[in-house]
Amino acid sequence: MCDNCGCTLTISPAIKILDQQDKQALVNIQIFRENRIFSLNIMGSPGSGKTSLLEKTIELLGDRLKIGVIEGDLEESLDAERIRQKGVPAYQITTGSACHLDAFMVRHAMSHIPLSDLDIVFIENVGNLVCPAVYSLGVDCNVVVLSVTEGDDKPAKYPVMFRFAQVLVISKSDLLPYVDFDISKVISLARKVNPAIKVMELSIKNNIGMDGWINLLNYGVKGT
Amino acid sequence: MCDNCGCTLTISPAIKILDQQDKQALVNIQIFRENRIFSLNIMGSPGSGKTSLLEKTIELLGDRLKIGVIEGDLEESLDAERIRQKGVPAYQITTGSACHLDAFMVRHAMSHIPLSDLDIVFIENVGNLVCPAVYSLGVDCNVVVLSVTEGDDKPAKYPVMFRFAQVLVISKSDLLPYVDFDISKVISLARKVNPAIKVMELSIKNNIGMDGWINLLNYGVKGT
Repeated sequence: MCDNCGCTLTISPAIKILDQQDKQALVNIQIFRENRIFSLNIMGSPGSGKTSLLEKTIELLGDRLKIGVIEGDLEESLDAERIRQKGVPAYQITTGSACHLDAFMVRHAMSHIPLSDLDIVFIENVGNLVCPAVYSLGVDCNVVVLSVTEGDDKPAKYPVMFRFAQVLVISKSDLLPYVDFDISKVISLARKVNPAIKVMELSIKNNIGMDGWINLLNYGVKGT
Repeated sequence: MCDNCGCTLTISPAIKILDQQDKQALVNIQIFRENRIFSLNIMGSPGSGKTSLLEKTIELLGDRLKIGVIEGDLEESLDAERIRQKGVPAYQITTGSACHLDAFMVRHAMSHIPLSDLDIVFIENVGNLVCPAVYSLGVDCNVVVLSVTEGDDKPAKYPVMFRFAQVLVISKSDLLPYVDFDISKVISLARKVNPAIKVMELSIKNNIGMDGWINLLNYGVKGT
């Protein structure tokens, strides 16, 4: 229903589809847990730095933990290739024009990576600050990556995502001197929609803040 | 159908909905043309600089052309407020969790701005490099704004959008010294999926490349 005038905008079949999705998400998390895997859904706008964060994480953690990656892209498999070059198993989901990953796509991809050998699975969602937040994939931790070049009003403009995520990674902090971006404002806006959200500020380029991220991953693995 | 293994992922009701959308889009363009309005759909990732581009355009053109703006946001009306502060009529569409504007939403918004008094209407879509490209709004010109901080691989990763747009605005070129972004690569990738796409490079901050953008708008208005 349109909030402005009452005209009908809602599409009811979507509700039924989401029900099925939620059931599949419960199956997925069960499989991850049976395999003692810490699973993360990495979301964010195109270019927010999701793949770069995964590459850096593999560099820092790859000799201590066994990492697997599921990549979501519309058509190309560029990201999975980047990850494989780091020596980590990666499976590419090609969504066509679909703007998000869903639990069924992830279940399919899970059968293409060696789950029983892994400690962590990262699922890099399609670059999109809206739709992925409506689809539970069945993971331990939903992460939204927001780069400092995207503007400090984003948690107010895209609240669904910031409500959905347990962790907010503020990326590309090396660019702070060149853009208008107030980190305290972002944190305040994010906490307004999600008081419990954990926030960390990173620069992969300048290797700032990576300790906190690595600690979170280690904690997640030990906790499973 | 999943390209990987043949499992079914397609949701058929969407096809019917898109048919209705296309019919409404034809109605919208007809109304814009009857009112001799040049209409543009401004798309791009969150934080690509869409609202800033509109603000700068109003500063440069507002005393010569009568501008109206339709804004799409999930919950807040921040962008419409920014535009109204420039003295231009702006109507906010609040989409809730919907990731794009559609032709019905735009038709509704059109009744809230003084069409008969306007020369140009800008429709700023929800920040999203995927979904808006599937929904025709019924405009003369679809524009995608890509900031140099988003990475130069985006036309390969999000080809649907770059195929849909007639104009690619490469924004925030003042940040080029601080990021890895090869403009010739972006243009080449964009033209691979859309050989006719018009490309312009802008910096609103440093006032670079605005002449080409203003010329395009003036040409659009004179041509209607």
